[in-house]
Amino acid sequence: MQSEPVLQDLIQALRCLPGVGQKSAQRMTFHLLERDRQGAFKLAQSLAEAVDKIGHCQTCQTLSSSDVCGLCSDQRRDQQLLCVVETPTDVMAIESATSFKGVYFVLNGRLSPLDGLGPAEIGLDKLADRIKKGTVKEIILATNPTVEGEATAHYISEMAKKHQVVATRIAHGVPFGGELEYIDSGTLSHAFSGRSEV
Amino acid sequence: MQSEPVLQDLIQALRCLPGVGQKSAQRMTFHLLERDRQGAFKLAQSLAEAVDKIGHCQTCQTLSSSDVCGLCSDQRRDQQLLCVVETPTDVMAIESATSFKGVYFVLNGRLSPLDGLGPAEIGLDKLADRIKKGTVKEIILATNPTVEGEATAHYISEMAKKHQVVATRIAHGVPFGGELEYIDSGTLSHAFSGRSEV
Repeated sequence: MQSEPVLQDLIQALRCLPGVGQKSAQRMTFHLLERDRQGAFKLAQSLAEAVDKIGHCQTCQTLSSSDVCGLCSDQRRDQQLLCVVETPTDVMAIESATSFKGVYFVLNGRLSPLDGLGPAEIGLDKLADRIKKGTVKEIILATNPTVEGEATAHYISEMAKKHQVVATRIAHGVPFGGELEYIDSGTLSHAFSGRSEV
Repeated sequence: MQSEPVLQDLIQALRCLPGVGQKSAQRMTFHLLERDRQGAFKLAQSLAEAVDKIGHCQTCQTLSSSDVCGLCSDQRRDQQLLCVVETPTDVMAIESATSFKGVYFVLNGRLSPLDGLGPAEIGLDKLADRIKKGTVKEIILATNPTVEGEATAHYISEMAKKHQVVATRIAHGVPFGGELEYIDSGTLSHAFSGRSEV
């Protein structure tokens, strides 16, 4: 088997997938070649097509096959409401779970100086340009509730304040259906400090 | 995002990998397109090449890019010792862990009548032809110690007996470095009934 460079190549190539190590890559290789050659062929085609065609939307930076993505070019969406998220996956999650009808701005991650990610690297200058245009009336900060995500949200809220744009943060607290007993302490203390009148 | 068929295609295509569901496929898609486009390109190429070039060895049925695989055509290997395994992955595992210098025969799985896998489907007729040739002196049964694997081993041992060929089964028992306290009861009782004199 050591003598099959084609197989070794495929095993190595599969390891670029997140969460896939040597053993999983071997299992995938043999599964594809023994049981699902059509799937493997389709996957090769889809990958090549995606790498070739998918770029970033010029307006919101999400992954898109056209210069301006479907969400940004949709005239029925409210251009005054801008939701800022960390990744294109977040856009997908919000689109499928909520009835949000505004537009998005996708950061390339979050502010993380230790990783060399400053405001320019995550596209905050582009966001500033967009705010300056004056169309946006409210920025909804939907970055993740992590230290870096909070810092990024704070940075953008300062930016919004400078241009007299309202900045709101999505609510954080006890998840729907969750039981207090099993909630981590950080979330619970956050839920208490962020309580609202009923 | 619903409006990007290229992305949806890729997510669907990734789900053909074993153990990859909708969420993992999304994560992989965005990881590849945002962080590792070169890896994605390489993976597409490797997949296409493997699907195109890899077939089955005519002698031992393992995955191979040539008509006869490297192991079968290696003249230094002992053609009288034949190790029967369930999958090409098993060949790889044995090659990297043991100093076995015989040749292999790879079944396409194991006898499993409920799944429609009879002797012909897993290539046992081909194995019978090979035994009839008379080169093989010992068959080492290295199928998995599952119900189906044991049944397959038993079937092949009967076949070997008919042609006066010795059939041996690899040892099963407490794994090296294992602690009796944590071994499952099946393995432990097997280890007792299969004890040998020291």
